[in-house]
This record gives sequence, C-alpha cells and structure tokens, in this order.
Amino acid sequence: MSNSTNPHFKKTAVIGVGLIGGSLAVELRSEGLTDEIVGIGRGRANLETALSLGVVDSVTTDVAQGVEGADLVVVSVPVLKIADVIRMAAPVLTPPCIIMDVGSVKKAVIDAVEPLVPEGVRFVPTHPIAGTEDSGAGAAFKGPFKDRLCVLTPTDNTDKEALEAVRSVWRLAGSNIVEMDAVTHDRIFAAVSHLPHMIAYTLVNTVAAAGGDETDMVRFSAGGFRDFTRIASSSPEMWTDICVMNSEFIVEMMDNFSSRLEVLKRLISRGDLDGIKEEFRKAKKVRDSLISEGWDEE
Amino acid sequence: MSNSTNPHFKKTAVIGVGLIGGSLAVELRSEGLTDEIVGIGRGRANLETALSLGVVDSVTTDVAQGVEGADLVVVSVPVLKIADVIRMAAPVLTPPCIIMDVGSVKKAVIDAVEPLVPEGVRFVPTHPIAGTEDSGAGAAFKGPFKDRLCVLTPTDNTDKEALEAVRSVWRLAGSNIVEMDAVTHDRIFAAVSHLPHMIAYTLVNTVAAAGGDETDMVRFSAGGFRDFTRIASSSPEMWTDICVMNSEFIVEMMDNFSSRLEVLKRLISRGDLDGIKEEFRKAKKVRDSLISEGWDEE
Repeated sequence: MSNSTNPHFKKTAVIGVGLIGGSLAVELRSEGLTDEIVGIGRGRANLETALSLGVVDSVTTDVAQGVEGADLVVVSVPVLKIADVIRMAAPVLTPPCIIMDVGSVKKAVIDAVEPLVPEGVRFVPTHPIAGTEDSGAGAAFKGPFKDRLCVLTPTDNTDKEALEAVRSVWRLAGSNIVEMDAVTHDRIFAAVSHLPHMIAYTLVNTVAAAGGDETDMVRFSAGGFRDFTRIASSSPEMWTDICVMNSEFIVEMMDNFSSRLEVLKRLISRGDLDGIKEEFRKAKKVRDSLISEGWDEE
Repeated sequence: MSNSTNPHFKKTAVIGVGLIGGSLAVELRSEGLTDEIVGIGRGRANLETALSLGVVDSVTTDVAQGVEGADLVVVSVPVLKIADVIRMAAPVLTPPCIIMDVGSVKKAVIDAVEPLVPEGVRFVPTHPIAGTEDSGAGAAFKGPFKDRLCVLTPTDNTDKEALEAVRSVWRLAGSNIVEMDAVTHDRIFAAVSHLPHMIAYTLVNTVAAAGGDETDMVRFSAGGFRDFTRIASSSPEMWTDICVMNSEFIVEMMDNFSSRLEVLKRLISRGDLDGIKEEFRKAKKVRDSLISEGWDEE
C-alpha cells in the first residue's frame, strides 16, 4: 500500500493506556502515524509506566487537558465508561478531530456517544479482537492486533474520510478489517464471546457448589474443565459492563442455549441414545468444519 | 520403591488396543511387568498396527481365545461395552486372574460387571485420567499417564491383593493414585468432565443455529469460543455411552447448572450490576485459587 494514503495525526490522545490502548499507541508510533501521543488515565502508576516505557510522550489524569488540540482521540476504557470520558472531552475537541473507541459492545456505545460528539468532530466505532489469549512462542513476537480481526461498525452519521483513516490505522497495525452494522456485531459477539463467558462463570460456580470444597473436585478435572474455566478468570468488572451494555442479545443467546440444554437433558433422562448421539454429531460436524476451514489450532 | 513389590503377569490380554489400552501395554512391557501381551479388538487394521509397532505380541478378534490363560485382562473399550466383553471372556477366565477396566463411569460398570466375574477371578475398577489433551513439546516425551491421576474405585467385593497389584501397575505407569467409592467418582466426574462436554456440544449447536451460516459467526470468535468448542470434537459415540451410564448425576449437574444460569440471566435482564459482578467475582475467585494451588497452566 502506498504511504501517501496513510493518515497522519499531529497529536494523539489515548484515554485508557491498557493492553489495547497502549499497544495501539505503540503501533501508531512505529508506523509513523503520529507526532505526539498523550496518555490519559486515572491511575498515576500505570501512566508513569507507560511514560517510562516510551509508549506515550506525556501523561495526565485530566481528560479535557489531555485531549486539547488532539486530532485523534482513542478511547480505550470499559464500555460503560466510554460515553462518560467522551462527555468530559467534548467541550475542548475541535474539528476535524477523530474519536475512535475500541469497545466490545457497539450499539449501546454508539447510541450514547453520537449525541455527545461536537459538530465537525468525527466518531468512528471499532472493535479490535485482540489476540490476548494467544500463547506459545509465536505470540511473543507479534502485536496483539497482527492477523486478528478488527470490526468497524460505522453508522449513517459516520464521516467517510474519518472511517477511511481509522481503517488505515488498524490495517497498519496488522488487523484484518471487517465492516458491519452495530446490531449485527452485538448479536454475533453475544453468541461467540459473551455467552461463553456467562457459561464459564456459571460452570465454575456450579462445580464449586457441587463439590463443597471446590479444590477437591477440580483436582480430578482434565482438559475440558480447564479450558472452560480459563475465561472465568476474566475481569468481573469488565464483564458486568458488557452484560449491561449488550443485555438484550446476551439474554437471547442464554435463552437459546438453555432451551437446547433442556432438550439434551430430556434425551439423557429418557436414555434416547440416538437422539443424544445426533446432538453430539451435529456439534462435532460444525466444530470439525471449522478446523478444516483453516482455524488455527494449538 | 522396591522391585520385590512389583506384580508380574505371565500373560496380559488387552481388550481394546486404543490410546489407553495400547499405552498401558507399552508401560507394562517397559516396566517388565508381563511376559506376553495379547491384543484383542474388532478392527483387524488397528490390531495389525499394534502388532507391527510391538505394542502387543499377538492379536486376535476372538475375546475368549485371546484371554485364555491370561492372569491380567485389561478392558479398554467404551463404557457401554465393558460388561459385554467381560461376559464373552468370563467362561475361559481362571483364578486368580485380575480384570481391570479403565472406564470413565464406575458405578454402572461395577454393577454390570461384578455379577459376571467367575469365582476367584478378581475385578478391579479403575479410571486413569489420561493426559490426552496435553499439548506442547513436553507432552511428546511422556506417556499419557505420567503425573496424571488414576482413580481406583474398589468395592466391598474387591480382592485386596488384586487391588494392590493394580495400584502398582498404575504407579509404575507414572500415575498419581486416588481411591474413592464409585458413586463419589461418578458425581465428581459428572461435574468436572461430563457437564462441560454437555455444555460444549450445546454451545456449538446454539451458535451454529444462531448464525445460520455457522462459519460466519465463528470467524469472529476469540479464545473463549475456541476453548469451549475444542471438546465438542470429542467422539459422539463415546459420549453418548457416558451419558447413558452416568445419566443420574449428569442430569443432576445439568439441573444445577441451568438453575444458576437462569439466576444470572435474571440479574442481567433487570440490570442488577452488583448481583452480576458478585457471580463473576465468586467464579473468578475459585478459578484463581486453582491457579495458586499449582494447577498447571499453558
């Protein structure tokens, strides 16, 4: 791709210098997309770390002060806080500044944010699916966005030029970009990400309660339980926010799942071998087809 | 441990020369615990492979012929078939032959098998939790039983000397041995192994149905969904058998799980942030405590 199409930002403000925000700052700098990066956050210690690592050029805990004069604002805070920080930033933002968020729920974020954005300032909703769960040697040598999907969910209000600039940023960070509407996004992620987390948390609590002394039960677990429980160590705060922001689709998927589990339970109760086997075969076929379509396995 | 306490078998018959049966044959031979190993199975091709690899010394598809004169019979077939093969073997077994199974359900197997065992022949029920889901370089250099648990579930009818001999076999294969009653075993494994499989199969079917074109939905999945769906590629036949053999506890655990999931769903429906967060925190605490107690993580 020609460098002439790459966007350039004089001042980038990153609100929330965590894994996603910090990594994106590193990518922006290494790709030469920005002259200056300000890190904004609530925790002094984390900001000082980012500063000392050279991830950002300066830091502040004051959102309005940090974003002043920025032509790119990256909002990388928990989904329930995105509108709050944009409300704090809005008074000092000037056109043609681009705001992008990286939240894993999109419709509720867009609905809350769009009315807050000043005339001429351009909001682009994004959801990078960072490879934070990658393990093994290969993962250490590439950024969290490399070869991973980034979903863009523009609305009728999204400025086309800003969308193209944001697309370029993610492309240069190594992401594969997919565009879809926010509702489709939220429904898909309710199924493939949010529902598994609800299940994982619930499974751990179920086994802990069944075992009384949870450690004793888990001693006997093999890979199945271990895989399930891994995501049950995810941040309760972050996942509570996601539940609230995408409650409609999460509840829909939980209902779908519960109905199917109930059907399977009845098949087991009445010893319907053919019925049970058919359910398992259907699932195995889907899972195996994913492998044959090039899903990467450890 | 002193070699004088090691058991020795003149003729070992392994019925079902798959991963577990075949690996145990290899361990028996490498530890010098047997003079001769006969492999018994239904599939000629698999038997010939085992023979050519030196896993067994001879092969046959005839159970009675294969076990004749054996002083150790290892039954490594699907749980629903264990009683059938022991019924075929019983007429030619002579005291003090030891029969051990390796099934992942114990109470139903014991109830079916004990009445079939001839006077003086000694049945010892076992469940090795093989590390077949291990990955990475380390896994290639150790057997599937090394440092893994093996559960022994003796009954009032179990011969003490036979139990000690079987315990020695598994200890020499590298297993850590735990003894418990069959009902406790079945309840624990309903929770930590069988329930996760029911959930994994059901989750895949739920997402496939929600997506219509399942591949499209799964394209957007990250680690959570991938971890869950891994065990949904398990053998439908094997898991159908397990469901039938341990239906009571599996249904109990599915009920427990469904009730908890329903509670969580209601918390989400009514936007009860504190309630949701508490559920997640409880689960995370259990999961994190497992890590701190030395659970091995990738």
